[in-house]
Amino acid sequence: MDAQEFKEAANATIDDIITYFDTLGSRNVVSTVEPGYLRKLLPDEAPQEGEPWAAIHKDMEAKIMPGITHWNHPSFHAFFPCASSYPSILGELYSAALTTAAFNWICSPAVTELETIVLDWLAKTLGLPACFLSTGPTRGGGVIQGSASEAVLTAMVAARDKYLRETVAAAGEGGLTEEEREERVMVKRSRMVALATTLTHSSAKKAALILGCRFRAIRVREEDGYALTREGLAAELAACRAQGLEPFFLAATLGTTDVCSVDDFEGISAALADHVPPGAPGEVWVHVDAAYAGAALVCPEVQESTRIGLVSRFHSFDMNMHKWLLVNFDASCFFVRNREWLVQALSVNQAVYGNKASDGGLVTDYREWQIPLGRRFRSLKIWFVLRSYGVKGLQEHIRRTIKMGEGFAEALRGRSDLFEIVAGPSFALTVFRLAAKSEGASLEERNAQTKALYEKVNATGKMWLTSTELDGRFAIRLMTAVRTTETEHIKTAVKTLVEIAEEVLRG
Amino acid sequence: MDAQEFKEAANATIDDIITYFDTLGSRNVVSTVEPGYLRKLLPDEAPQEGEPWAAIHKDMEAKIMPGITHWNHPSFHAFFPCASSYPSILGELYSAALTTAAFNWICSPAVTELETIVLDWLAKTLGLPACFLSTGPTRGGGVIQGSASEAVLTAMVAARDKYLRETVAAAGEGGLTEEEREERVMVKRSRMVALATTLTHSSAKKAALILGCRFRAIRVREEDGYALTREGLAAELAACRAQGLEPFFLAATLGTTDVCSVDDFEGISAALADHVPPGAPGEVWVHVDAAYAGAALVCPEVQESTRIGLVSRFHSFDMNMHKWLLVNFDASCFFVRNREWLVQALSVNQAVYGNKASDGGLVTDYREWQIPLGRRFRSLKIWFVLRSYGVKGLQEHIRRTIKMGEGFAEALRGRSDLFEIVAGPSFALTVFRLAAKSEGASLEERNAQTKALYEKVNATGKMWLTSTELDGRFAIRLMTAVRTTETEHIKTAVKTLVEIAEEVLRG
Repeated sequence: MDAQEFKEAANATIDDIITYFDTLGSRNVVSTVEPGYLRKLLPDEAPQEGEPWAAIHKDMEAKIMPGITHWNHPSFHAFFPCASSYPSILGELYSAALTTAAFNWICSPAVTELETIVLDWLAKTLGLPACFLSTGPTRGGGVIQGSASEAVLTAMVAARDKYLRETVAAAGEGGLTEEEREERVMVKRSRMVALATTLTHSSAKKAALILGCRFRAIRVREEDGYALTREGLAAELAACRAQGLEPFFLAATLGTTDVCSVDDFEGISAALADHVPPGAPGEVWVHVDAAYAGAALVCPEVQESTRIGLVSRFHSFDMNMHKWLLVNFDASCFFVRNREWLVQALSVNQAVYGNKASDGGLVTDYREWQIPLGRRFRSLKIWFVLRSYGVKGLQEHIRRTIKMGEGFAEALRGRSDLFEIVAGPSFALTVFRLAAKSEGASLEERNAQTKALYEKVNATGKMWLTSTELDGRFAIRLMTAVRTTETEHIKTAVKTLVEIAEEVLRG
Repeated sequence: MDAQEFKEAANATIDDIITYFDTLGSRNVVSTVEPGYLRKLLPDEAPQEGEPWAAIHKDMEAKIMPGITHWNHPSFHAFFPCASSYPSILGELYSAALTTAAFNWICSPAVTELETIVLDWLAKTLGLPACFLSTGPTRGGGVIQGSASEAVLTAMVAARDKYLRETVAAAGEGGLTEEEREERVMVKRSRMVALATTLTHSSAKKAALILGCRFRAIRVREEDGYALTREGLAAELAACRAQGLEPFFLAATLGTTDVCSVDDFEGISAALADHVPPGAPGEVWVHVDAAYAGAALVCPEVQESTRIGLVSRFHSFDMNMHKWLLVNFDASCFFVRNREWLVQALSVNQAVYGNKASDGGLVTDYREWQIPLGRRFRSLKIWFVLRSYGVKGLQEHIRRTIKMGEGFAEALRGRSDLFEIVAGPSFALTVFRLAAKSEGASLEERNAQTKALYEKVNATGKMWLTSTELDGRFAIRLMTAVRTTETEHIKTAVKTLVEIAEEVLRG
C-alpha cells in the first residue's frame, strides 16, 4: 500500500467512522451472531499474494460489523462504558503513526514527558491530593496502565516488595547472607495476605492469584451501603492476627462494579492506624480502585461528597479515562504517592537498555513503573480530550449522564408496583429488581421473575443490560454514562422495562 | 468536535502521517531535547474551556515532534524495530472507532473470533506445529498480548498453577482441607524455581519477581554460540535437585536480545526428559520467547534452519508482530499447546460478567487467557497486514532485511583492521567491537575504544545504535530490520563507522 492508496483508504475510513457514529442508534446493541460465525466466512490460511484494500474494506462491513457489539450505542446500559470520542480517535491515529516502544525516556522523550504532565493535569482536575503529583512533596506521580487490572497488580507487587523490605532484614545486616534472606522472605510471603471486599472488582483476586499470595474478601453489607467500614476491616485484621497472617495490602473501592458503592475511607484509615500506624514498617498498602466512578471527580461537588482528599492517607489510586471520561480504551491512570515503591519492585536491568539519560537519573523510565517493557503513546489521546473538551466540557458530560441516571431511578420509583430499587442511583448506575408479584413470594420466585424480565429486555436487541447478584438476590444494573445516550433513550428504556415487567408480573 | 471538524482534522492528520513517512529520513533519529523540555512548553493545568483543534494540531509539530525518537527512521539500528505500516495504521483507526472492552465473546464476537482465526493463520505461516492451533489436536490456540513481557508472565503463572495441581494433592483428596492444602501450596511454592539463561530477556526475571518465586539464570557461553545446551541445562537441574529446589519453568529463546542466538531445542528437551518425562506430573514448562526473531519463521528456510517443529515438545511460544512483521505496537502473539492451562490459572468469576454464551461453554472468553480484563481489537491490524502484504510480501521483507544485515557484516569483515565481529550476522543483527589497536591491548582499553566509537557515532544524530556487554566485552549492536531501511542507508552506516573507527584508532 503506497502513500496514495493509504490516503484514499484512510479518508474513506474516516467517512466510515463518521457514518458509524451517525447511524449507530439504528443498529442492534448486541451482536446476534452465533458462535463460530466468522470462521465460516474466512479462508483457513493467510493469502500468499497481497490483496487490494478494496477487498479488505468490503469485508469490514460484510463480515466484521455483524460481530460487533456497540459499546457506544446510546442504549448500551451494560457493565460500565468503554468511551470513545473524535479527539481521542485522533490521538490513537497519531500514536499509531509515531509507533514507539517508549520504555525509556530516550526512546521518545515526548512520550514520557507528556504522560507525566497530562497525568498531573488529570490529578489536579480530579482533586487528588498533591502527594500524587509528579511535582508534589513525596516523589509521587502518575503512569498510564492498560487497565485497572494491571494497576491493581502493579500496586500489589509494589506493596509486597515494600512490606518485605520493611519487615525482613536486608542481606548483609547482622551477617545475613543472600540465601538466608531469601529463605526468610519465602517464609514471610507464606503468611502475607491481600485484603479486599466481596464487592471489590475481581481483578484484586486475580492479582493475588498471580502473586501467589493469600487473599481474603471482607463481606460488605447492605445496611452499610455495601461499603467497607471501620468495624468490618478491624474485625478482619484481628482475625488475621489471630491466625498468624500478615495483611500487607487492601483494595478499597470508589464505585464498586455491582452497585457503585464507596468504601469508608475515614473508617479504613482509622482501623489501619489501630493495626500499624501509618508510615510505620509493615503498614498496610491501600490501593483505591476508582476505575469507573473516579471520572466523576472532575466535578467539585463529587470531590466534596466523596471526601477525596482523604486518599492522601493511602498509597495508590487508579481511574480509567477509558470508561466514563471520553478517552478510548486503553487509558487507565494510576497514581502513587512515592514512585520509588514502584521502581524498587519493578526495575530489572539489562545491558542493552543502558543509556546516558537513564544513568544520569534525571529522567523517568516508565518501564520501571509497570509490568510490560514497551508502551504506546497513550498520553496523546488524553491530552487531546482534556484540551478539546476542557474541564468544563468534561464536567458537563458527567453531570448530564448522572442526571439521566437519576431520572431513570425516579421513573422506576414512580412505578413501585413494578420495580424495587436495590441500590443507587449512584454515579449513573441504578440496580433494581422486579417487585414481588405477591406478598409471600419466595426469593427463588422473585429471582426467576427478575431474570425473566432481564432476558426478555435483552432479547429485544434494542438495549443491553447486565445483571448481578447481591446477597442471593438477582438484580439488574442499568448504567446511563455513554456519551451518545440522550434522555429520549432513557425514556424508551423505561417504556420497554414497564411493558415487559407488566407482562412478566401478569404471566 | 463535531463530525465535520473531525473529518477535516482527521484528513489533515492523514496528510501529516504521509508527509512524516516521506520525510522521515531527513530528521535526526534520536530526539535531542533536554530532560524536562516539555514542561516548559505546556501550561500547568488542563484548560477550563475547550480549545479548537487548530491550537492542538499546531502543538503537535511545534512541541511534540522535537521529543520523538523515530523508530521507523531508515537509520534506526538500535534494539529491535517497532514496526509500522499503512495497513496496520488503518487497523488501529478502525479499532479506535469500534472501541470495545472485549473481555468476553459476547462483548464483540468479531473481536474474539478474528483473533482466534488470524492467530491460526499466523501459526501456520510461521510453521508452528499443529498443537498450537485452535483447531489442533490439543485444545491449543493463540491470544494477542500487549508485549512479550506479558506473555512470559502469563506463561509463568500458568506453569506454576499446572505444577502445583500436579504435585500437591487437591483439597478433598484423602480428607485434605482447603486450609491444609493452602499450607502445602505455600511450602511447595517456596521451593519452586524458574529458570532462564544469562541472555534470556529481562522480562523472565521480572515475571519471577512478580510471582515472587526463585529465579536462576544459567550461564551461556560464546563457544556454544550463546545458546542454552543440553549439558548446561542438565547441570542446573542437578544443582537444583541437590539444593531441594524444584524447577517448574524454563524460558528458552529463539533470537536473544543481545546476539540473536537460538537455544538448543533438541538439547533442552533431552535434558528435561532425563529430569521429568514429558507429560508426567511435575514436568518443566518450557516457554519459547521468539519475540523478535520469530518473525523470520515466515520463511520456510528459517523454519528449517531453526527446526521449529521441535517446539511441539514445549508448552508456549510467543513472537511480536510489532517488531519485525509490519504490525504496529502492540501485537505480541502468544500460543499455548493447551488453553486449559491458562484458563485454570487465570479464570476469576464475578456475577456481572456472567452471560449465556460463556455459560454454554461454546465460546472463548479471552479474559481467561491474560492478565488484564479488557482488550482492544488488535487482530484487525494483524489481519490487514497479513492480507495487504500476503505471505510472500512478508517473506520478501524478512529476506531483504536479513540480506542487508549480511551485507553489513560482510563490509565489516572487509575491514578487519577496524572491526571484529563478536556475534552474527544473525536475523539481521550484527554485534561487533573495534579491532585491537595493538596486540597487547587490555580488555579495559578495548572496551573504552569501542565505547568511544559507539558514542561518537550516536552523537552524529544520523543513526542510532545500542550496545551490550558479553562476558565483560563492550560491544555494539547494529540491526537492519526496519521497513524503511535501504541498502544505501547501510552503506552510509558503514562509511560513518569506518571514518569514526579510523579516528578512534588513530586518536
